Amino acid sequence: MSDSDSNPWKTHSIEERYDNPWITVTHREVTAPTGNAGIYGLVHFKNTAVGVVPIDDDGNTWLVGQHRYTLNQYMWEIPEGGGAPGEDNLDVAKRELREETGISATQWTQLLELHTSNSVTDEYAVGFVAQGLSFGDCEPDDTESLEIKKVPLQTAIDMAMDGRITDGLAMACLFKIQLLINRGDLVL
Amino acid sequence: MSDSDSNPWKTHSIEERYDNPWITVTHREVTAPTGNAGIYGLVHFKNTAVGVVPIDDDGNTWLVGQHRYTLNQYMWEIPEGGGAPGEDNLDVAKRELREETGISATQWTQLLELHTSNSVTDEYAVGFVAQGLSFGDCEPDDTESLEIKKVPLQTAIDMAMDGRITDGLAMACLFKIQLLINRGDLVL
Repeated sequence: MSDSDSNPWKTHSIEERYDNPWITVTHREVTAPTGNAGIYGLVHFKNTAVGVVPIDDDGNTWLVGQHRYTLNQYMWEIPEGGGAPGEDNLDVAKRELREETGISATQWTQLLELHTSNSVTDEYAVGFVAQGLSFGDCEPDDTESLEIKKVPLQTAIDMAMDGRITDGLAMACLFKIQLLINRGDLVL
Repeated sequence: MSDSDSNPWKTHSIEERYDNPWITVTHREVTAPTGNAGIYGLVHFKNTAVGVVPIDDDGNTWLVGQHRYTLNQYMWEIPEGGGAPGEDNLDVAKRELREETGISATQWTQLLELHTSNSVTDEYAVGFVAQGLSFGDCEPDDTESLEIKKVPLQTAIDMAMDGRITDGLAMACLFKIQLLINRGDLVL
């Protein structure tokens, strides 16, 4: 197969087992870097996960609540959405923030990049901070039933610290914002 | 189907499309909370992801480097492993730390719980801090080719802050440790 010379994994076969608009699952026969034969079920994510922490001039942010099908659980998160291949991550962040919360922003800062679950998936996520906010109407898509809550940023960070927010991307973004504030690298 | 009354999603069909020792992928016809028909490709994770940040009396930690098949990329992470259903998370943490680094610890603190990627998967992760360390031989499994690096904890946190560590669980754990230290809630 087309593994680069620097890839210590060897792929001997790739069989597509599932495909939908968001993911493709392939079954692979591989040789691990140790030389042992193995299999891999790789979940390819077609979209980039984009999260936004909007912060207004009074130090408030906005959380999005929804019943997550995957976990059958109601969860509070930061505004998040998916960017199609080739879409600019910042454009996605602007669109998702506006659609989910009705908020536009003049000042955008890329906060972090992360890989959500790299033992099985190639999902890649980007987080942004949005400041200089203005407010319009939200436009949720036709499968989203979202609740929007304005809270002090400190409350959102506390929710991530004490387990009321458990979404990995939201936690990483909120924690990093607190650390940047502590270091004087993010001014509210 | 067996949705609880409180679940606003309705599931009309479930078809298994892929199964291996780590994941099961099912295709589902659903009705979203908005009332619109849709589909869901749900990636069920059989194991719990468990991460450990060991910290010695001199403020050092240990990172694990490996070429991740999913991303075809060499990545530095905290010691991590998978716990089978029914296994105690702390027992998994102790085993994975010992297997990957040869380290045992007398003092264990649960640091956080998170959901890695809840738009598509039900993967659940737990992070621990291990202190009171003692050192033996590591016992990697036969598909793992791991590099182990001892670094100051502050270096590991800096690596998560500046993008040299991009694994979501590792980032969340390292960020939260820094915040707990800042608050005086974690003593090294």
